[in-house]
Amino acid sequence: MPDQSVRTETDSLGTIEIAADRLWGPQTERARRLFRIGSEVFPRPLIRAVGLQKQAAAEANQALGELPAEIAGPIIAAAREIAANELDADFPLHVWQTGSGTQTNMNANEVISNRANQMLGQPLGSRKPVHPNDHVNRGQSSNDSFPAVMHVAAAELVTQRLLPGLETLQASLAGRAEEWAGITKLGRTHLMDAVPITLGQEFAAWALQVEYGVARVKAALPDLLRLPQGGTAAGTGLNTHPGFAVHFARRMAALTGLPFIAHPNPFEGMMAHDAFVALQGAMNTVAVSLTKIANDVRLLSSGPRAGLGELVIPADGLSSSIMPGKINPTQAEALTMICAQVMGNTTTITVAGAQGHLELNVFKPVIIQAVLQSATLLADAAESFAQNMVDKLEPNRDRIAENLAKSLMLVTALNPKIGYDKAVQIGKKALAENLTLRDAAEQLGFVTPADFDRWVRPEEMTRPGVTPPVVE
Amino acid sequence: MPDQSVRTETDSLGTIEIAADRLWGPQTERARRLFRIGSEVFPRPLIRAVGLQKQAAAEANQALGELPAEIAGPIIAAAREIAANELDADFPLHVWQTGSGTQTNMNANEVISNRANQMLGQPLGSRKPVHPNDHVNRGQSSNDSFPAVMHVAAAELVTQRLLPGLETLQASLAGRAEEWAGITKLGRTHLMDAVPITLGQEFAAWALQVEYGVARVKAALPDLLRLPQGGTAAGTGLNTHPGFAVHFARRMAALTGLPFIAHPNPFEGMMAHDAFVALQGAMNTVAVSLTKIANDVRLLSSGPRAGLGELVIPADGLSSSIMPGKINPTQAEALTMICAQVMGNTTTITVAGAQGHLELNVFKPVIIQAVLQSATLLADAAESFAQNMVDKLEPNRDRIAENLAKSLMLVTALNPKIGYDKAVQIGKKALAENLTLRDAAEQLGFVTPADFDRWVRPEEMTRPGVTPPVVE
Amino acid sequence: MPDQSVRTETDSLGTIEIAADRLWGPQTERARRLFRIGSEVFPRPLIRAVGLQKQAAAEANQALGELPAEIAGPIIAAAREIAANELDADFPLHVWQTGSGTQTNMNANEVISNRANQMLGQPLGSRKPVHPNDHVNRGQSSNDSFPAVMHVAAAELVTQRLLPGLETLQASLAGRAEEWAGITKLGRTHLMDAVPITLGQEFAAWALQVEYGVARVKAALPDLLRLPQGGTAAGTGLNTHPGFAVHFARRMAALTGLPFIAHPNPFEGMMAHDAFVALQGAMNTVAVSLTKIANDVRLLSSGPRAGLGELVIPADGLSSSIMPGKINPTQAEALTMICAQVMGNTTTITVAGAQGHLELNVFKPVIIQAVLQSATLLADAAESFAQNMVDKLEPNRDRIAENLAKSLMLVTALNPKIGYDKAVQIGKKALAENLTLRDAAEQLGFVTPADFDRWVRPEEMTRPGVTPPVVE
Amino acid sequence: MPDQSVRTETDSLGTIEIAADRLWGPQTERARRLFRIGSEVFPRPLIRAVGLQKQAAAEANQALGELPAEIAGPIIAAAREIAANELDADFPLHVWQTGSGTQTNMNANEVISNRANQMLGQPLGSRKPVHPNDHVNRGQSSNDSFPAVMHVAAAELVTQRLLPGLETLQASLAGRAEEWAGITKLGRTHLMDAVPITLGQEFAAWALQVEYGVARVKAALPDLLRLPQGGTAAGTGLNTHPGFAVHFARRMAALTGLPFIAHPNPFEGMMAHDAFVALQGAMNTVAVSLTKIANDVRLLSSGPRAGLGELVIPADGLSSSIMPGKINPTQAEALTMICAQVMGNTTTITVAGAQGHLELNVFKPVIIQAVLQSATLLADAAESFAQNMVDKLEPNRDRIAENLAKSLMLVTALNPKIGYDKAVQIGKKALAENLTLRDAAEQLGFVTPADFDRWVRPEEMTRPGVTPPVVE
Repeated sequence: MPDQSVRTETDSLGTIEIAADRLWGPQTERARRLFRIGSEVFPRPLIRAVGLQKQAAAEANQALGELPAEIAGPIIAAAREIAANELDADFPLHVWQTGSGTQTNMNANEVISNRANQMLGQPLGSRKPVHPNDHVNRGQSSNDSFPAVMHVAAAELVTQRLLPGLETLQASLAGRAEEWAGITKLGRTHLMDAVPITLGQEFAAWALQVEYGVARVKAALPDLLRLPQGGTAAGTGLNTHPGFAVHFARRMAALTGLPFIAHPNPFEGMMAHDAFVALQGAMNTVAVSLTKIANDVRLLSSGPRAGLGELVIPADGLSSSIMPGKINPTQAEALTMICAQVMGNTTTITVAGAQGHLELNVFKPVIIQAVLQSATLLADAAESFAQNMVDKLEPNRDRIAENLAKSLMLVTALNPKIGYDKAVQIGKKALAENLTLRDAAEQLGFVTPADFDRWVRPEEMTRPGVTPPVVE
Repeated sequence: MPDQSVRTETDSLGTIEIAADRLWGPQTERARRLFRIGSEVFPRPLIRAVGLQKQAAAEANQALGELPAEIAGPIIAAAREIAANELDADFPLHVWQTGSGTQTNMNANEVISNRANQMLGQPLGSRKPVHPNDHVNRGQSSNDSFPAVMHVAAAELVTQRLLPGLETLQASLAGRAEEWAGITKLGRTHLMDAVPITLGQEFAAWALQVEYGVARVKAALPDLLRLPQGGTAAGTGLNTHPGFAVHFARRMAALTGLPFIAHPNPFEGMMAHDAFVALQGAMNTVAVSLTKIANDVRLLSSGPRAGLGELVIPADGLSSSIMPGKINPTQAEALTMICAQVMGNTTTITVAGAQGHLELNVFKPVIIQAVLQSATLLADAAESFAQNMVDKLEPNRDRIAENLAKSLMLVTALNPKIGYDKAVQIGKKALAENLTLRDAAEQLGFVTPADFDRWVRPEEMTRPGVTPPVVE
Repeated sequence: MPDQSVRTETDSLGTIEIAADRLWGPQTERARRLFRIGSEVFPRPLIRAVGLQKQAAAEANQALGELPAEIAGPIIAAAREIAANELDADFPLHVWQTGSGTQTNMNANEVISNRANQMLGQPLGSRKPVHPNDHVNRGQSSNDSFPAVMHVAAAELVTQRLLPGLETLQASLAGRAEEWAGITKLGRTHLMDAVPITLGQEFAAWALQVEYGVARVKAALPDLLRLPQGGTAAGTGLNTHPGFAVHFARRMAALTGLPFIAHPNPFEGMMAHDAFVALQGAMNTVAVSLTKIANDVRLLSSGPRAGLGELVIPADGLSSSIMPGKINPTQAEALTMICAQVMGNTTTITVAGAQGHLELNVFKPVIIQAVLQSATLLADAAESFAQNMVDKLEPNRDRIAENLAKSLMLVTALNPKIGYDKAVQIGKKALAENLTLRDAAEQLGFVTPADFDRWVRPEEMTRPGVTPPVVE
Repeated sequence: MPDQSVRTETDSLGTIEIAADRLWGPQTERARRLFRIGSEVFPRPLIRAVGLQKQAAAEANQALGELPAEIAGPIIAAAREIAANELDADFPLHVWQTGSGTQTNMNANEVISNRANQMLGQPLGSRKPVHPNDHVNRGQSSNDSFPAVMHVAAAELVTQRLLPGLETLQASLAGRAEEWAGITKLGRTHLMDAVPITLGQEFAAWALQVEYGVARVKAALPDLLRLPQGGTAAGTGLNTHPGFAVHFARRMAALTGLPFIAHPNPFEGMMAHDAFVALQGAMNTVAVSLTKIANDVRLLSSGPRAGLGELVIPADGLSSSIMPGKINPTQAEALTMICAQVMGNTTTITVAGAQGHLELNVFKPVIIQAVLQSATLLADAAESFAQNMVDKLEPNRDRIAENLAKSLMLVTALNPKIGYDKAVQIGKKALAENLTLRDAAEQLGFVTPADFDRWVRPEEMTRPGVTPPVVE
């Protein structure tokens, strides 16, 4: 009695058994067995893009007369299910497969062939009327289809999640900057006490870092919108309709709402993935910015009693397991961790992007995996940091005032009045003898107390370009 | 009517609803909501190590009289279930959480408390008789427990999977080296035709690279065996029994069969994770070696007709989706992709490892995630490459002989006979006029055909130290 | 008798001896002694930018009435000498100094003060009438001046050398692409024989990679043109004239011909150097592209007899020291080596850029050193590769034809005629029985020889979108 | 009249003019013109190793009867001059040359030939009696000689400078650890106030990090001691005496005092440079450790008034150019900058090490350049940091006491007495109502003041394993 749980299929290498209820076919099954490496599967945005790619291809082929409606229709219907992430369980392959993504493209061809034939009342594995290569993969190669999938997945993720996530953080930081524009505090350079600034100025500079980051990511988008689909096997477009590339790009633009175009030179988009290296360069810059911001929040909130203590972080309810009542900057930690991951991904993508050979770069899966992970983590963490940290921060006004009052660097305001060399003497005397600057200045006979009070005004030191200098 | 699908628990921040059937508690639930970042969860070896850590801690505390048997027993029983990966579904937290791993440690404390109390007939959430902090976390902090978990997970994975995987590949390469020791072929330097070597010599050198890699990974193991457990909150061991660290390490050694010891200075193992940076440095070196080997296999098998074509790669049944019958070095591609990932992980771990502050490095989750991923991928891919590529390679003897015969660099054998400058003239003439070296040498009057045949013997050129030079 | 070879100067820490003929002062001398680390000094473009910065500052101060002409004049004269790289020997400090570049800024202040006073007939070390801080550094801080120097140096180097260097390479590649548009050759994917392309298509794709690289670098330029000068100590502009930033930027634009502007928020340009991280991201992408191109040239020219052998590299006269007459792709090797350096610099700059603290990033010297090195190496190597490699390559037309004729992947052209599954059978039979595709197709009864000859035309396979498919 | 300033030499490519007084020959001159890339030349330790290599080779050849004394003698004499760095000016080539280091090897062959012939009364360029290839390069190839040079240079630098530099820093840190073992201070985790530790414990942990770093670097040394010399062109040892490798290694050991041995498989040491990747992995770990230590010193000394302020950094006399009297942690900044460079070098070496092809890795110059730079910078910076920072630090005892007294985390000591949940309530109440822990504990009725004073003793909290718990 035959095993009901499996079906047997045949391909050019021979027969192979596949779980009876799975939509994939022999190529997927062989790959599943040959690449037992790790556990990483492609994320949802990539599987969605696989569906979109097959749908747009079938629509283009139908429009061009390359596929009859009775074949194209079921292909499109099945591809839509993939694009809706309804068939994710039928994409079992790991990232660590052939470097062209061929197995994932064949996985799609097989799943769609089976699902389409199933809709048409045929058993799984029948390969007809809808054939995985001749119809689903019509006028396509993995070598142009998988790059197209990469471009679509990245473009959607960047526009739908990364940019909004960063914009949320930017708005959050900018909001606090405005709110706290009037809080004068000590600035710090070299992590040492420096001259006064406002708390708003710190947040505004961070907000601007994020704003520039948004612009840098956007500048990388046009590269993503050039789809190398239509190059087929090696870039020349062999075996595809001359109009396919343009029709495909138009269909993809319609399906996604993103202005995709046909790559002017599909060779470039198949032999190299510089577009993703460039995008990652922008995301790496964002990771650098966010690390800086998170570290600053961590520093300013250090204490609460024996650190800088100028910001109060929210009590998130996540205690230390041993130190009762301890509140930690947990969101800053999650954010800096994902930034470290993004920086590592930059190295991964650099190494992978540089090693293309002739007509094909065969590091496609690892590149897109790292790009999508970077975009997802930055998006999620930026949003989480905005909502769970920035929006809930509070200034500790008493501490801010106390820290400002202590600093010896207010002496800098005296430079234009008495010269740098005398100002040095005041600062050194105050530090050595634990005096106030005012007393040190007077004892040295350089500045009268009255002049000191007129000249050394912390609030005005934060806006020298705005406040006219005191007229004497 | 209350919602049956949830239970309500209370902690210091207030009440919170938890799915009724879940073993975790309020701290885990809060973390789950606060860190909606990415989708990466810790791999099985880490969750297993969490169970081992809690089990060894309870056993040590019981032995030291810090926990009564009626409390320790259920804790140990529950921890065993975690160590057997039976409760993985109750560890829902992502990698991107607090940088100390506190939430995963609290997740373990809560799951064990609940599971233990459940075994004792108490409802979930009762926090007694087994309390998550006072009993499960007894004498521990996340700050020493999570590093201990990191050490245990990495040590197990390295010894149980990475080293065996590399040894499999080493043996596979060494086997082919022996088998093909007699095949003389062209060597290539600068990717250009050079002097003869044997195919066995190429495989032997690759085997040695892997052998050295095994030694480098082993050299990093002792660092992993020093467990910082016992340092508690900041390294001093506050609130733990003075004998706890040593008892714990002994118990862990017994549970795992690995010779763990108590860290001589737990501060170091909590404030820094140099042990993992060093281990990653070894794995990075392995990735460099494996990239080299995979690329060489790819080069030697290029063609099959219009490349070097000296090795025949196995027909794995994974066709091109457009080019019928095409056979690709898919295993080499998977291997070099995972190497790119490992190289990126090195950057991630470097960045993360360098940013510890004072008594605690708060990049623990990302560090251990990247370390475990690196070890897993190297292990799996090495094994897959051995079995699916190296073991199935075949030399193309005709092509090897043809390539060897063509090369002009056999002229190098003439240097000691006629001097370098004359040998240059022979080589240049042969290349320019498309002659054999033998003819060019004769036409220039530098070497007689008879001498040429005695002096230029490719087989002997591969073992000049073995074969005595021809006596004249 | 006093030592004539030194002069003794005094600063706030006490006295210090300086070589009598050196223009630097006590701060530089102290730094020279305190930072005996490595041997790396700043490159000429940075020292030039130091001079430009001091000149523009003095001109702005004079225009704003902050410096009298008799002080500003000598400062400007001395700064011009620095900008002309005439005083490089008086900038002895290594890159590895204070992270704000303060010592190099003070070095400039001291050299200019001394040189200016010298012009005015005063002895070195007199500090008057031109004072290093009160006059040369008037209205400036190292914290805004050194970043301005960084921006100017990078902007000049990028526009004057990097972009022209890349454009030279782009033109060189595009020229060969046009020249060789008619040479049909075998394409290779996965480094394995694939379908036909033209040699021109390969070069055109490489040229496009470089063209996109130029665009990416240009897109990073606007960030460089925002000068944070005017922020002074912490970003607020304390102690500088409210109009200084704008006047300074205008002067710098006039001096350099580059459209510099005052940074809208100088805090951002001092606390972070994301502009350089982003620029490096673009240069990293260029390094990825160039590695790919160099590797491809290396592969195509491998042999000359027992490799792919399709390109003939120039005999550059650099022989192997042991293998007579060997010609190696030395320019490709130099190029890929500098690309590896640029990729490493990306990690350096990422690590350094991420670690700013509050109002100041103190990794400025290492960041600008790595940026300038990357730009210089890419510029020089691109030009060298263009002139010494690309321009001198020759196709080996016989070998190209031979390789093309051998390939089994021409079978791909049959897919649309007989279906993928039958085409697979033809290819497999030809490979296994060492037949031509034509014979295999006929023996299997799938294609008549006449049809084969009509359908399988390599030249037409390279331009399927151009050549109308044969009508049947 | 002929130009007296140049001499004309001839090689296989034709004639070339060389500056009359230079010792190099046509190969060097050609390379100088062909590789106008950057300005980086090899550092002194490499040029020294080039001399040692040629000296040891000539001595070995003489001992084996391969070179007569009258030829070997002058070669050895000239090589000694190179090894003494007396002829550095005759090594003009940049790092960015052929990837095998062939040009630098030929540079050495030519300089020695010329210098030896000069000693023998022959004019420069005579190539006799001492011939650059046949005699100076006797039994050698660049392919084994340059790797040997790399090993020797790195082994000398690591043993003579890197290890002593790290040991100096380790001793410095350990000394302060002992000195300050009795200073109880606040510990910090997550950069937030935690439980007490001692200042000595912090320094001891740092010292241990460096101690482990020394051990890791030492563990990488044996790989460096295996010299691939003797492999000649491709690893087989063609054209060299069978005893050459062993004799050479013995001579090198004698010349350097380091236990060099002949590589058991020279192929491995020529086709790959995993030994350097592994060494860099160890140096990268050291860079990670040193970054951590420098950052901690920077944090603890932040202020001096409005930061943590627990350490007082030395007044090094290097002022801010605008803020009078400001003292900055300049040595910490230099140290963290060189660490960023070392981390970048790790990426460079990883990329370069992975790209070897078949019998030769052609990234040798960039690899050894990055390795030697890493070792030099770490050595110098570690020593500078020890002498100019660690040895001059002072604790601010008042501030340390004040910070400790403030912290709420002393409540942790109550966990074993009253349970974690009650301890949480005390901490929260103290924070919210700005109470001391003692008052909060009493007001909640959980702990009497007398018990509080017995249980909460900061000094004892730093050595719980030493001090027996108070018996009740």
